[in-house]
Amino acid sequence: MVEIDRNRLLQDLHSLREFGRAGPGVVRPTFSEQDIAARNWLRQRMEEVGLYATVDGVGNVVGQSPNTGPTLLIGSHSDTQPRGGWLDGAMGVIYGLEVARALLTDPATAHFAVDAVAWADEEGTYSSCLGAKSFVGDLTDEDLKDTNADGETVADAIERAGLNERPKASFDANRHRSYLEAHIEQGPYLEENHNRIGVVTSIVGIRGVRFQFEGQQNHAGTTPMARRQDAAVAMFEFGSRLQKVMAEAAGPTSVWTTGVVRIEPGAESIIPGSATLTLQFRDADDNVLAAMQDAAMGLAAALNNESPVTVTGVPLREKIAPTVMDPALRAHIASAAAHRAPGSWVEMPSAAGHDSMVLSHYLPCAMLFIPSINGISHDFAEDSKEDDIALGCQVLADAVVSILTEWAQ
Amino acid sequence: MVEIDRNRLLQDLHSLREFGRAGPGVVRPTFSEQDIAARNWLRQRMEEVGLYATVDGVGNVVGQSPNTGPTLLIGSHSDTQPRGGWLDGAMGVIYGLEVARALLTDPATAHFAVDAVAWADEEGTYSSCLGAKSFVGDLTDEDLKDTNADGETVADAIERAGLNERPKASFDANRHRSYLEAHIEQGPYLEENHNRIGVVTSIVGIRGVRFQFEGQQNHAGTTPMARRQDAAVAMFEFGSRLQKVMAEAAGPTSVWTTGVVRIEPGAESIIPGSATLTLQFRDADDNVLAAMQDAAMGLAAALNNESPVTVTGVPLREKIAPTVMDPALRAHIASAAAHRAPGSWVEMPSAAGHDSMVLSHYLPCAMLFIPSINGISHDFAEDSKEDDIALGCQVLADAVVSILTEWAQ
Repeated sequence: MVEIDRNRLLQDLHSLREFGRAGPGVVRPTFSEQDIAARNWLRQRMEEVGLYATVDGVGNVVGQSPNTGPTLLIGSHSDTQPRGGWLDGAMGVIYGLEVARALLTDPATAHFAVDAVAWADEEGTYSSCLGAKSFVGDLTDEDLKDTNADGETVADAIERAGLNERPKASFDANRHRSYLEAHIEQGPYLEENHNRIGVVTSIVGIRGVRFQFEGQQNHAGTTPMARRQDAAVAMFEFGSRLQKVMAEAAGPTSVWTTGVVRIEPGAESIIPGSATLTLQFRDADDNVLAAMQDAAMGLAAALNNESPVTVTGVPLREKIAPTVMDPALRAHIASAAAHRAPGSWVEMPSAAGHDSMVLSHYLPCAMLFIPSINGISHDFAEDSKEDDIALGCQVLADAVVSILTEWAQ
Repeated sequence: MVEIDRNRLLQDLHSLREFGRAGPGVVRPTFSEQDIAARNWLRQRMEEVGLYATVDGVGNVVGQSPNTGPTLLIGSHSDTQPRGGWLDGAMGVIYGLEVARALLTDPATAHFAVDAVAWADEEGTYSSCLGAKSFVGDLTDEDLKDTNADGETVADAIERAGLNERPKASFDANRHRSYLEAHIEQGPYLEENHNRIGVVTSIVGIRGVRFQFEGQQNHAGTTPMARRQDAAVAMFEFGSRLQKVMAEAAGPTSVWTTGVVRIEPGAESIIPGSATLTLQFRDADDNVLAAMQDAAMGLAAALNNESPVTVTGVPLREKIAPTVMDPALRAHIASAAAHRAPGSWVEMPSAAGHDSMVLSHYLPCAMLFIPSINGISHDFAEDSKEDDIALGCQVLADAVVSILTEWAQ
């Protein structure tokens, strides 16, 4: 057993918070001046811990253990949303630093190999999970053409940040055995059920369908009701019945959202000729996702028959499959949670996406959650209790020692 | 009985069509170069007929009969929608010209006083029914600040058109006894029921209510369904149930339209925090309008109780009351229609607004409709059969003679 240093952990977290601090929140999007400064600080901090650290050619900060043997990679991302919270990503990065440090400074664990990492652009300021994709070799030339909101490409940003000559760190199948990532939950489940640790079972998959309603634009005064092909009316009917058919197809933690709704032409005296509705839905089980998609498409087909408006659904291209966490790694985290927080931990899916989604295709992965106060994230108000922050790091450290001990046997 | 000249009527209509002609349609918005040219042409044509004609200080073309005594004012508007049809307004203007001409050239009717008029900006390129309002003295200083889509005010447009020094024509209570307006139906009722003449009973009133849905914007992945306050979901439910409650409160020719729908912030991964829906409804009976408004407001109140989203409705300021046509004038038109088109005429409300709405506060008014092919209007495809155009003018002329004969007794 190793003990993490609560004060040192919190101090490092607050130091990282200063890079881009804005009130209680943080503005540190990828490749901003503050982001690059934070990465250089993290590199230096990893060096002080005794890791061989570099900022690589896409901004990843990778701190390599001086030890050899089967190695655990631990971390998260250090970039933030345009108006982000101070713990999203940052906490998992500092956990990696603290766990590596705690193990290296305890003679009983100083021989274990832990690499710490801070990925670049998980939030997709330029290209989602850019750093993790680069690390596993999944980054394409197309990805390098992705731009931020100002139109700067990934390639230009890397050059501006002075990283273009740097080698890109990469996954070493002979060294890296597994990846662990801790994160704030970003939702309310843990807090609502008075749990302090979540052991992630899987990261939800995301699917989307865009529904198009094609009617007939016409005069809102002179067109009798019986002759109308009103796209908005058809969309309302679809949106209303959608709630029931989705609930029937969904699992207990499924979510679905109609976040984009448009009608044309959008004038008071004109009957809407067309309407668009985008449905996004998430679940940890691919079968549930398929059932939800069938339900929504079935409703569109039914409405297309009933209504004078043409209703069609087109599944969106960017489909993310659910990511199942490694059962063996999960068991180590669950065991550590049961020991440090008896009766206050739970197995749960992750409703948000994480770098583990990219890494899991190459490495067994597992994740640990701590509660978010009021479930708030991607907002300046994002916060967690200090006791929960410290507990999460301790559970992670215990699990790491348990995993590395098993590997050494 | 007087006979109108079908060829002369159609020729004048086609001549007016050339001002702003665009394929089968016309682009002649108020105070455009083409609109001013058309008004000068109309003035000259009225002079040729024997009327004393002027283009007034807001663009109205008024042709005064050389005769004295109780006078009938006959006309419509000569401006068009941005992409308008060739008959909307224009037909009623040329009817006025032709009826005045037919009466003046027939010794039996040459003593009757008919003034012809072409109103400015009924379509509201700058300010709806600008010319008619000016004529009756309802034009306010605020109206003169109204702008077109390019931001030009009414006052600036009048100056640009060189009309600012001109006197404004005005209603003369000692002279003008009634106003008659002919128009294309702009809807499908006449054509569908094989009728050729519509005697307008009243012009529908228009009311509107803006409904606001205030929920809670949140993450589309991490917010459980049970905790959501999704403004779009509440709006769909409202829009769906609205159709039934409005149908129950409506009369046989009522219409209602949800032409403006917006949700915020409008991103796939964000639960909509707010939504807006604008409902417009029309009927010829103010009591029916009140019942429809109550039904929609009642639904909002019910949903506000049922849903975690706050639902409120605010009646819009620009409420137009139904305009009842004068029964005595209507009887003259009905009698003429029964004579010229036996079995092919009908009494009906007007689903669209007209200059008569403004004039009816000062003068008894009546209107006559002819069929629109496929009910199309406000579109380049707008058209009517030549036989119907000629018939409508003849019925109007017969009614005019009948009215003036009665007044002379």
